[in-house]
Amino acid sequence: MDKKFMERAITLAKTAAAQGEVPVGAVVVRDGKIIGEGYNRCEELSSPTAHAEIMAINAAAKTQKDWRLGGCSLYVTLEPCPMCAGAILGARLDEVVFGAFDNRAGSCANESVVNLFSLGYENPPTVYGGIMEEECKTILREFFEKRR
Amino acid sequence: MDKKFMERAITLAKTAAAQGEVPVGAVVVRDGKIIGEGYNRCEELSSPTAHAEIMAINAAAKTQKDWRLGGCSLYVTLEPCPMCAGAILGARLDEVVFGAFDNRAGSCANESVVNLFSLGYENPPTVYGGIMEEECKTILREFFEKRR
Repeated sequence: MDKKFMERAITLAKTAAAQGEVPVGAVVVRDGKIIGEGYNRCEELSSPTAHAEIMAINAAAKTQKDWRLGGCSLYVTLEPCPMCAGAILGARLDEVVFGAFDNRAGSCANESVVNLFSLGYENPPTVYGGIMEEECKTILREFFEKRR
Repeated sequence: MDKKFMERAITLAKTAAAQGEVPVGAVVVRDGKIIGEGYNRCEELSSPTAHAEIMAINAAAKTQKDWRLGGCSLYVTLEPCPMCAGAILGARLDEVVFGAFDNRAGSCANESVVNLFSLGYENPPTVYGGIMEEECKTILREFFEKRR
């Protein structure tokens, strides 16, 4: 776990905010290098699945020419939703590092609606939550405050 | 619920099989018309998220130019995995009709690892499982038998 990757995810979240998207950013890391990154683009792409994690995972898989991402870590500014947690399982990522907790729509912590990684699905990743939490929360809070 | 839409999903699953992909097909229906369809293309696209449901949901959202799919139904030949069930929640689909149950990787039935729609997330769809189950199961069984 290396905070510099979360810093890059935070930069990507700010890019999303500048484009009027809910500000979440993500990177996929293998052997200390970013091999895929993304930010939330649901509005731009008219896509309910264009979350930061999905964009980063697909970018990494494309780079590798293989959808299997065993040996990789995902860094994301917000706790993944069930869709993204499911994609993490499906892609067989080893590690998830997230910033802000999301007790309402998250699915990767025991405090959330469900911890999808604790139910017995194959290949659950190791999870580190609350990394650079304040910075990650602030981006989201400021975005929603401006929108009101 | 109209079986003709499951028949179309089955045809799409067979297209996937012919391309060496795990045979699952899906369509999204609004007002009695298919507005998006897809089949599993994980290998072709090197994408862990290219499940039939994700392809069909994104095709429908693109057609509509809106990622919100309230008022729509998804027909899919296999019980959705957590990623796809999460995408169904995120896209706010009203109804899910699936064919074969998937007790190992499914997440939309009480017999499965989890029923993601029963946990308290917002906008859970109505679910009909086991529709044209035998036909849907047969396509999968024949695919995996040939692969051995």
